[in-house]
Amino acid sequence: MSVLDPPRRELRRVTHGGRIQGCRVDGDRLILDDGRSIHEVDALYAPPVEPATIVCVHLNYRSRAVEFGLDLAAGHPTYFVKPATAINSHRGQLVRPADCTLLNYEGEIAAVVGRTMRGVRREDVWDHLAGFTCANDVGAHDFRDTDAGSMLRVKGQDGFCPIGPALVSGVDIRRAGLRTYVNGQKVQEAAVSEMVWGIDELLADITRHISLRPGDIVLTGTPWHSRPVFPGDTVEVEVEGIGRLVNHVVEGPAPPPGRGFPATVTKTSLGVALGSDYRALKRDKEPPTAEHYRAARGDLIARNMASGPPSKE
Amino acid sequence: MSVLDPPRRELRRVTHGGRIQGCRVDGDRLILDDGRSIHEVDALYAPPVEPATIVCVHLNYRSRAVEFGLDLAAGHPTYFVKPATAINSHRGQLVRPADCTLLNYEGEIAAVVGRTMRGVRREDVWDHLAGFTCANDVGAHDFRDTDAGSMLRVKGQDGFCPIGPALVSGVDIRRAGLRTYVNGQKVQEAAVSEMVWGIDELLADITRHISLRPGDIVLTGTPWHSRPVFPGDTVEVEVEGIGRLVNHVVEGPAPPPGRGFPATVTKTSLGVALGSDYRALKRDKEPPTAEHYRAARGDLIARNMASGPPSKE
Amino acid sequence: MSVLDPPRRELRRVTHGGRIQGCRVDGDRLILDDGRSIHEVDALYAPPVEPATIVCVHLNYRSRAVEFGLDLAAGHPTYFVKPATAINSHRGQLVRPADCTLLNYEGEIAAVVGRTMRGVRREDVWDHLAGFTCANDVGAHDFRDTDAGSMLRVKGQDGFCPIGPALVSGVDIRRAGLRTYVNGQKVQEAAVSEMVWGIDELLADITRHISLRPGDIVLTGTPWHSRPVFPGDTVEVEVEGIGRLVNHVVEGPAPPPGRGFPATVTKTSLGVALGSDYRALKRDKEPPTAEHYRAARGDLIARNMASGPPSKE
Amino acid sequence: MSVLDPPRRELRRVTHGGRIQGCRVDGDRLILDDGRSIHEVDALYAPPVEPATIVCVHLNYRSRAVEFGLDLAAGHPTYFVKPATAINSHRGQLVRPADCTLLNYEGEIAAVVGRTMRGVRREDVWDHLAGFTCANDVGAHDFRDTDAGSMLRVKGQDGFCPIGPALVSGVDIRRAGLRTYVNGQKVQEAAVSEMVWGIDELLADITRHISLRPGDIVLTGTPWHSRPVFPGDTVEVEVEGIGRLVNHVVEGPAPPPGRGFPATVTKTSLGVALGSDYRALKRDKEPPTAEHYRAARGDLIARNMASGPPSKE
Repeated sequence: MSVLDPPRRELRRVTHGGRIQGCRVDGDRLILDDGRSIHEVDALYAPPVEPATIVCVHLNYRSRAVEFGLDLAAGHPTYFVKPATAINSHRGQLVRPADCTLLNYEGEIAAVVGRTMRGVRREDVWDHLAGFTCANDVGAHDFRDTDAGSMLRVKGQDGFCPIGPALVSGVDIRRAGLRTYVNGQKVQEAAVSEMVWGIDELLADITRHISLRPGDIVLTGTPWHSRPVFPGDTVEVEVEGIGRLVNHVVEGPAPPPGRGFPATVTKTSLGVALGSDYRALKRDKEPPTAEHYRAARGDLIARNMASGPPSKE
Repeated sequence: MSVLDPPRRELRRVTHGGRIQGCRVDGDRLILDDGRSIHEVDALYAPPVEPATIVCVHLNYRSRAVEFGLDLAAGHPTYFVKPATAINSHRGQLVRPADCTLLNYEGEIAAVVGRTMRGVRREDVWDHLAGFTCANDVGAHDFRDTDAGSMLRVKGQDGFCPIGPALVSGVDIRRAGLRTYVNGQKVQEAAVSEMVWGIDELLADITRHISLRPGDIVLTGTPWHSRPVFPGDTVEVEVEGIGRLVNHVVEGPAPPPGRGFPATVTKTSLGVALGSDYRALKRDKEPPTAEHYRAARGDLIARNMASGPPSKE
Repeated sequence: MSVLDPPRRELRRVTHGGRIQGCRVDGDRLILDDGRSIHEVDALYAPPVEPATIVCVHLNYRSRAVEFGLDLAAGHPTYFVKPATAINSHRGQLVRPADCTLLNYEGEIAAVVGRTMRGVRREDVWDHLAGFTCANDVGAHDFRDTDAGSMLRVKGQDGFCPIGPALVSGVDIRRAGLRTYVNGQKVQEAAVSEMVWGIDELLADITRHISLRPGDIVLTGTPWHSRPVFPGDTVEVEVEGIGRLVNHVVEGPAPPPGRGFPATVTKTSLGVALGSDYRALKRDKEPPTAEHYRAARGDLIARNMASGPPSKE
Repeated sequence: MSVLDPPRRELRRVTHGGRIQGCRVDGDRLILDDGRSIHEVDALYAPPVEPATIVCVHLNYRSRAVEFGLDLAAGHPTYFVKPATAINSHRGQLVRPADCTLLNYEGEIAAVVGRTMRGVRREDVWDHLAGFTCANDVGAHDFRDTDAGSMLRVKGQDGFCPIGPALVSGVDIRRAGLRTYVNGQKVQEAAVSEMVWGIDELLADITRHISLRPGDIVLTGTPWHSRPVFPGDTVEVEVEGIGRLVNHVVEGPAPPPGRGFPATVTKTSLGVALGSDYRALKRDKEPPTAEHYRAARGDLIARNMASGPPSKE
């Protein structure tokens, strides 16, 4: 009954005719649960599950640790929580408020809980999961310095957790690879085997303290090369055997004056948002801005994807 | 329609005869919604609301800033999230795992959302709230160093957010006072007016980014003198006009070996858990432990409650 | 704090950019909770509330009693329940399965619960409601004879309870009027004052037995002249001061052979679906079908709207 | 992945220390999900699942059809819905309002949905279920004549759907037997094979029209010999391989005058509540009351259990 064992199975959900309903893929069409069919390209997706709790690991791929010069060897995973209102859909919009510039993608795999989990042994985790889906742990690093580590302003905003297109079981996720694309250009690539803590290890660790319930999800970390995206961009997160999650960046209004504390950009937030490109960019500009990154990103991405994460020397 | 305006109104919920139902107080009895009545002292309380999202402010009372030598004057509030599984009831148990020693109380006021809030102006906040209840932002500081600021291990554990006994509206919370008691001895006392950021300011700030929905709650911070409690202790959080939340500390088992990363106690976690008593205690013991604190706490509490928070000089 | 007292207030919800969010009307645009605005005519509505329990009264307007020759004077209201999966949206589709012909509209007012109700006195009902919305108690009378009174097959099907466009409070619903339109032609008209049992009376009666919770709805009955509609038709339910709910009838596939018990049309189901027109139609055809009604309905509707409900003589 | 295939698995939930949590049986103790253990006899059970939709079949065992002289051979199943507020727990109370006398038990098997079901083929049903639990389709037949077939007043009252003690999978329910006991005396007995429509057939039929979602339940009918129970009685529903659900009948207050329409007892309601005993009892009393039944029930039950359902001749 392990979630890793075949056959592969999918659950998709779409909003159609005023209601959310399940559906299945049939060629280039979706067969809705009520028997009707629609063109897949026209589908208005809903999230495949509606989690109450969303737990995210701060850091779990070696390449991201390398990029930031961190040593995870002797450590432990740390987590934060996104509110359920962060959930978004395949083809949904990522809204960058007008007073923000550092909206970063983070391609991730989400593990979806199938049966209530508390105190679950590592070897029993696979039997408690319902499946996996693609996720984007979107963050507005403009709020990096006003979050004290919890990531609530940065990553908890409405719509900052798109998942989809499908909940998939029957795939050995341990052998899968993850890739992220911006406007068709590959920007992240990693194998699940590069995770510092395996998905089973994360779930056993979290549920030592916290009950996870059916539909809850755990985002399992992003590899190196999270970078800002901009209104007009398309971001895609692909997980082998699971699917490809597509989202579009749009601009939203800044909040009216005096409505909450303002976004601020500091060297720290720039350093996190731009990663190892911060050093390269600041040769020209001090400090570099998101717009400097945007102007140079075609070349930077190409070079980075060719070289891999910088060694910390 | 402001939540601050009279008349005062209460909503309580109890588990009785296999079901959760509403009730109202009538002398020393509760009149259940189905017309039956029970002795209040025998009631098995359920949480007055079932929030999907629980947002907590890290630091909001001047006295706590003073205790830790922090300057909030020019700053902004920071927040973290507890999962919904942290909710606990009036008279519920606070379970301290056997491998933990630093389980701290933090008496707080919880604001309960009545209507969906996003982008709400400060002056409109009172009109969107359903009421207030007492809360205890319980934390196991043994995990302080493995949380990277998110407080998920420390404060997100199952049952670490007792609320109750009632959801109350029609009280001007801005004029209320907050007190916490351990085994009948007063351990925290503050006026809501001592908050750095008012409840309306917090809600306007959070909902700049995040939609809060009916039943969601915001914990608004604790004053100075959060300290460890121990199995056998009773903790009470009293808010004037709102009620008095009672909880009992019990010991739970440690997790089986290899089930997640272990609790650890460091100077940092001891410093947070013991607050300004850390300095006093380490004159005798280096480092002091929770048990040292326990042995001395009667005198420490009496002295602290008499003196107020230490000036930081 | 009565739901009847001004000021008038609206809550609308739309699916936009992958998420459901609240919004408010501003001229011909909707201002979304995140500050963006869209053309109202392009909006993809979500239901204004998501009830767990939907209670419907079988019969509550004198004119419908007259149409069916029933005497309600000495009686009591009777109710049935739709599952929550019946909820549909403003502008959503009403799907008529290919093996059905008798899909009827029933324009109604839905009362929306604001605070948990059990054992509520009639005079306290208005203080427990959140507001009102338009509803269509859609039914496929092809299943009339296979329901034994519960209406589950007839009226409980997915999407057979559209509500919207808004949840509205601050309107004295007791003075409102209800109208239904098919393809722009008025087909039902009644004043709320024609209800046999007032909305407060219904709610006090139901909650004698059953707890209603925030967001739950009660559909309060339809006046005379419920009739079949057909794929391609547009049905609108308008409640004065509350709004106008628009839905489109489309055809869905019949279930595959052997998947459940078949739709059947009998004199009884035809008699209910065609109401007082049954007698007129059967002069020509015995028995008349939905298609006979469709061919004649322009004239029948015009005559019926002019004459009012037949006296039972 | 069929719910019928071993190994057998249980999910139980209890309210303990202010929270609902999962647990498993270990001898005469329950091991809670947080690692603590309690005596099973002291456990305060919560329902094993929290359904949004509860569908019940009116009539599905041949013996009950025989008792009421009904012919199901050429027919179809009919259903009604209980609101979610009817759910009650193992060891919960069945509250008989003081103005009611005809509170009947109906021992049943509840099928619990595991994956969203719509348009599911009969042969795929077992793969969509999460398991089974015992249920009691409690009804107050005093409202029989004021329900018009929907059973909402009769069977939809708060707490009139106890389920438990456990959700069980891995048992071939088609080979199970069902028994009901009142105060230890057996009052109903049937094999699942006596159902007119199999569980798979019911689910395929219902989901032709209606989406069922994870946690939703279908009550699959009761065999003959549903009878009234009285305050002080204990009712037990046992399903082989699934468990034994225990509930206690208590008296609740009548509603205050003028709060809803009154309970009434008629020959029809007596006939349904007393079943084939109605004829026997009315030899002495015309009409017989619930109290007449109560006085005679020891003998009546013994005789009925020995004879089986009366032939209708």
